[in-house]
Amino acid sequence: MAESVDTLFVHAHLFTMEGRGVGYQADGAVAVRGNRIVDIGSTAALEKRYAPAERIDAAAHALLPGLIDAHMHTPWAVVRGVAQDVAHWMQKGLAPFSRHLHREAALAGTWLALLEALKSGTTTLGDYATPIEGWADIFAAAGVRAVLTPTINALPPGEMAGWRMGDLYPLNDDVGERSIRDAVAFASEWHGAANGRITVMYGPQGADMLTLEQLRHVKRLAASEGILLHMHVAQGDREIDQMLKRYGKRTPAFLDQIGYLDEQLLAVHLTEATADETAMIAYSGAHMVLCSGSIGIIDGIVPPTVEFRTAGGPVALGSDQAAGNNCHNLFNEMKLTALFNKIKFRDPTIMPAWEVLRMATIEGAQALGLEQEIGSIEIGKKADLILVDLSALNLMPTLVEPIRNIVPNLVYAATGREVTLVMVDGQILLRNGRLVAIDEAAVIAEVQQRAEEVAAELQRDPVHLEMALLQPMRAGCL
Amino acid sequence: MAESVDTLFVHAHLFTMEGRGVGYQADGAVAVRGNRIVDIGSTAALEKRYAPAERIDAAAHALLPGLIDAHMHTPWAVVRGVAQDVAHWMQKGLAPFSRHLHREAALAGTWLALLEALKSGTTTLGDYATPIEGWADIFAAAGVRAVLTPTINALPPGEMAGWRMGDLYPLNDDVGERSIRDAVAFASEWHGAANGRITVMYGPQGADMLTLEQLRHVKRLAASEGILLHMHVAQGDREIDQMLKRYGKRTPAFLDQIGYLDEQLLAVHLTEATADETAMIAYSGAHMVLCSGSIGIIDGIVPPTVEFRTAGGPVALGSDQAAGNNCHNLFNEMKLTALFNKIKFRDPTIMPAWEVLRMATIEGAQALGLEQEIGSIEIGKKADLILVDLSALNLMPTLVEPIRNIVPNLVYAATGREVTLVMVDGQILLRNGRLVAIDEAAVIAEVQQRAEEVAAELQRDPVHLEMALLQPMRAGCL
Repeated sequence: MAESVDTLFVHAHLFTMEGRGVGYQADGAVAVRGNRIVDIGSTAALEKRYAPAERIDAAAHALLPGLIDAHMHTPWAVVRGVAQDVAHWMQKGLAPFSRHLHREAALAGTWLALLEALKSGTTTLGDYATPIEGWADIFAAAGVRAVLTPTINALPPGEMAGWRMGDLYPLNDDVGERSIRDAVAFASEWHGAANGRITVMYGPQGADMLTLEQLRHVKRLAASEGILLHMHVAQGDREIDQMLKRYGKRTPAFLDQIGYLDEQLLAVHLTEATADETAMIAYSGAHMVLCSGSIGIIDGIVPPTVEFRTAGGPVALGSDQAAGNNCHNLFNEMKLTALFNKIKFRDPTIMPAWEVLRMATIEGAQALGLEQEIGSIEIGKKADLILVDLSALNLMPTLVEPIRNIVPNLVYAATGREVTLVMVDGQILLRNGRLVAIDEAAVIAEVQQRAEEVAAELQRDPVHLEMALLQPMRAGCL
Repeated sequence: MAESVDTLFVHAHLFTMEGRGVGYQADGAVAVRGNRIVDIGSTAALEKRYAPAERIDAAAHALLPGLIDAHMHTPWAVVRGVAQDVAHWMQKGLAPFSRHLHREAALAGTWLALLEALKSGTTTLGDYATPIEGWADIFAAAGVRAVLTPTINALPPGEMAGWRMGDLYPLNDDVGERSIRDAVAFASEWHGAANGRITVMYGPQGADMLTLEQLRHVKRLAASEGILLHMHVAQGDREIDQMLKRYGKRTPAFLDQIGYLDEQLLAVHLTEATADETAMIAYSGAHMVLCSGSIGIIDGIVPPTVEFRTAGGPVALGSDQAAGNNCHNLFNEMKLTALFNKIKFRDPTIMPAWEVLRMATIEGAQALGLEQEIGSIEIGKKADLILVDLSALNLMPTLVEPIRNIVPNLVYAATGREVTLVMVDGQILLRNGRLVAIDEAAVIAEVQQRAEEVAAELQRDPVHLEMALLQPMRAGCL
């Protein structure tokens, strides 16, 4: 007598990501009941064993764990593409817009980034943002899995407007303490919410953006509550300059001294970390997020990820923000990560396709501390699954012997648009490439309206005259 | 009284690529009669002036010149994705497949690459291949513009099977002379064919792959017939090794001595060229093709394109072959070119978006010697035009002031799937993202069948045991 399950995927090119490779199974099947994976095996075996409410024929598709984007700043998607090809990206590109990013614009940006990520196969979104009202509700409503990190900093908005490059930031005790209280309140409301789909991390925005006492306070809270820390570390020369001026130390050594380097830390970027600093952070048990596309565009740098992984630390991928990176698409991050590192080491064997696919799935889950729940297709794990159409022109042909070409093509040839189905927590959010329950056209209209409002406000603000891209605008290059 | 035209595009974000930038016009219109652009201007002006047979509303779309892919090896698309992440890509990855690439497989590969390129906005395909029967007919039938280069070499197929790395190639006079004769016959049949859509170049495959006398012969032919030369130059350490052993000179110095460096030469790759060699080639008046994705994957190298352009030479982009690069998509090449060079120079201002967009359009046309006919939207030029849907999630929002974000988003955020319409020579080949007159499903089925035939033959050939990817196959990484 066949057991009932909710969903049975059959005839897939199945990549479980179990073991040390990609866990390929030809003609594979996966059974889902509720929000969990309950069985995995051959199509023949599972067809006999189960009577599904829905049977999904995944022939000519790759069936993979949902992809994990560990570091995003979703609100910035509302001003995508306004700050590329410039020096001082933040100050001369994005900051003028940020002065006018009102709440509705920020929320529209979150919806935009979320849908872009979801449609390209991302099921877990690690977002890092000011915890404005309505932010977390978007992830709950959309049905995705999210690791939300409310930003903690002591930067007073009004005073920052007068800040000049090279000066120390005017850290403010009240701003920092309020920011910590807001994060604690946010965590108590959202950690474990939405059937466990939403979890929270604490996010000191950078070692340079809080006072020493505040950094210690956040670390004590994290340790006592068992909540992980998600922090920009050695993210740029501006940060290193602040740290040297304030403490006479570079960020990694400083964090080591104040007890930040341990298993609780998810360190983002490491753009300016030396090989030694990188190894020290990895050996401490801390984890890393690599944002290849963003740091490539903004800084022209390939962060020390090979060094971090060589020292044994797990690395997740992140799309950062669309105002710099221009897209929230893990297929883009996988490809750029493989290629940038080949170029960095002038060696085509560095960062093969299967390694970056692991970084986007099981290794990403490890970096987020969620490897018991997601990141691979394993009995008992959450049912976060995606199908990729291998009969898309740009992924053809499919060969299985003597060389199986599916993983190289997923990494080097896919655009993300080949994702046809996305399931999160057992629910199908995307089917035949279309969102099941979200009004995409309404999001697009809202984004355009809010973006135009922000741009119009900036146009009236004299600060726009300092933007780096005005010169190429005038020269007819944009 | 309104004049009749065949097609009138209206309400576009128009990028003519005229002048030194991108030639943006808001609410732009373009009129097409026959295979030529006959007028360009504001929508209001052209709506009054013309009575079109078809009026295309391009609101919320970018209207651009068709993209130019100057260097492809289309047949290899039939074995996409079989040779990545390995050293000695050609010998240990692709060559074992090449032994079994029969004619039908090669033609299926050409169809696959062509459709992939066309659907992502490429209107001119610069293909470089053995001129087997039926090859050129595919470009004629598909309706695209093509610059076809039949490969000329003196490598005897049977003898090459026994060739060992480090040995000199066994160049054969008869093979080389036959190859030259075939190319001449091909050019006389196809140069200017299909309403001028197809032109031909001569393609000595590399300075190491023909005898000195054959190289001189080809150059004399090219000079007397006014046909350009399309040639791999300094494409790898293998080539440099052959040249040093045979002539005691590196390729650029050798080519300089035998009179190859001039305006007739389109030099492909320059992977191993030094800065001085690169400048020498550019100063000679020769042009360059840059294959960022392919050389990045195969060699982990960023070719000296900034150096070539600094010396004044025009550079076209090329997707090379899908067995290495894994895709034929100019949006991919634009993005990788910008990012790889930012990383090479550790400078985010290097290779801004507008420069790579010029390389994919007007500068590419200059490199191919076709700038009088294509590469920009200009009255009198051929009507090769594409529309890109700016309301795709990953390209939203569209801002025009204070910073226009369209070009950065086309380069850094687009995947190529946002191309909704492609017109070549005045004919619409793609409409609403779908091929108008080509049976895509039939091509996909043919590709899969032919690829499986090639793979099955290779599986029976003991040479497959030497392939580099067998080890990761066994380790469960593919």
